[in-house]
Amino acid sequence: MTQEKPAPTAAVLVIGNEILSGRTQDVNLNWIATKLVARGIKLAEARVVPDIEDEIVAAVRALSGRYDYVFTTGGIGPTHDDITADSIAKAFGVPVIVHPEAKALLERHYGAGNVSDARMRMARVPEGAVLIENPVSKAPGFRIGNVFIMAGVPAIMRGMLDAIIPTLAEGKPFHQRSVACHIAESVLAEPLGAIQLRHPDVDIGSYPWFRDGAFGVSLVARGTDTGALDIVADEISAMIRKLGGDPVLEIAD
Amino acid sequence: MTQEKPAPTAAVLVIGNEILSGRTQDVNLNWIATKLVARGIKLAEARVVPDIEDEIVAAVRALSGRYDYVFTTGGIGPTHDDITADSIAKAFGVPVIVHPEAKALLERHYGAGNVSDARMRMARVPEGAVLIENPVSKAPGFRIGNVFIMAGVPAIMRGMLDAIIPTLAEGKPFHQRSVACHIAESVLAEPLGAIQLRHPDVDIGSYPWFRDGAFGVSLVARGTDTGALDIVADEISAMIRKLGGDPVLEIAD
Repeated sequence: MTQEKPAPTAAVLVIGNEILSGRTQDVNLNWIATKLVARGIKLAEARVVPDIEDEIVAAVRALSGRYDYVFTTGGIGPTHDDITADSIAKAFGVPVIVHPEAKALLERHYGAGNVSDARMRMARVPEGAVLIENPVSKAPGFRIGNVFIMAGVPAIMRGMLDAIIPTLAEGKPFHQRSVACHIAESVLAEPLGAIQLRHPDVDIGSYPWFRDGAFGVSLVARGTDTGALDIVADEISAMIRKLGGDPVLEIAD
Repeated sequence: MTQEKPAPTAAVLVIGNEILSGRTQDVNLNWIATKLVARGIKLAEARVVPDIEDEIVAAVRALSGRYDYVFTTGGIGPTHDDITADSIAKAFGVPVIVHPEAKALLERHYGAGNVSDARMRMARVPEGAVLIENPVSKAPGFRIGNVFIMAGVPAIMRGMLDAIIPTLAEGKPFHQRSVACHIAESVLAEPLGAIQLRHPDVDIGSYPWFRDGAFGVSLVARGTDTGALDIVADEISAMIRKLGGDPVLEIAD
């Protein structure tokens, strides 16, 4: 087996009291995860922190030091609770400046005489940051070092991420095979563990679910080698049949 | 003003590759957040880590040292990828034991002769742990120190959380007032910031949204003093009217 370059790694940092208060169900993490996986980038950790500068600074420093990329969502609007730009600048030890391109963009959007102080807040970025296009509402995101700062509104975040993804290193894309059945996990556990032992390069997960009053489980094999995934999916299906069950291939991508 | 006892604090630790791979949209964090807020407990941070022992150990230690309570979800089933019990034991520096009550419970559920090694895995807890009832599928969660270990399947997690909540310290419950309008955040920013400055004990957030092709914003005041929240909501509504908008009270709880 040839030595493969390890996959690039990433972390997501969700910034916002509204997630921690339960007001808002976060959907950005899942979206980002899906896009990174398709690019062959391993999402290794995620954190949610409140709108408190020290918390944002500490999390950005911890994550950007440890992973190849960090993606933040939230806190880049014009209101008093939007403190992400200042916090990121502090994390990198640089001042906040008004970015000339962002200023020009806001002036084109609102009209040169209509860029109030509040609007101009959206042109403030840490010194050295590069803008990320916002195809929805103009006010840009930005990148500094290995940290990408995006909006929290899902439609805007998705537009920004579309612009970011092609600029990232590519790993070998991850694929999966998911096989479902109605056998109890406790019955599957031993033979499934044996399949995992035989295929250390494939990551096998067992995810029980409960819907419409019935229990079931999805057995998911993940990895970069589709040939190995097919073999594992076949072994899982054979195991289920041997236990008297009816394997259903849910996903093969 | 009398000095109030600060609210108890909590963190959520979501354990599971399926969240980071994008396979599964987490819904447990939002559920737990809502229940904690109702109990007057401040959810201060959340993390998502993969099924890797060292990552779980490091996160549990960091969070349990910092907050009053930690709630984990995921990884307590019988399969090879369920490593939460072992990881938590390692975080606390204690061995894993078979809990006699959990063993008895599984024997009652499956029949005394039918508790396989895999099933018995679900009775394994860190030494000193106290069981948390699982009203859905029997295999219990557990508590050790200030850490509550729950299942990842939402229906089961919710049952366990219902059993946990009454055992937690109570803070003054948080309330909120949410007022929506269609005025741009950049126009609201300055007068809204002034309202926030006048009411430092109320936490005011501005949450833009984009639905059906229209932008809007929800202005949310949160705190424990409903009288202060009513005043802030009135000031926000007056501000919106002054700017020519039509305030809509979305939430007052």
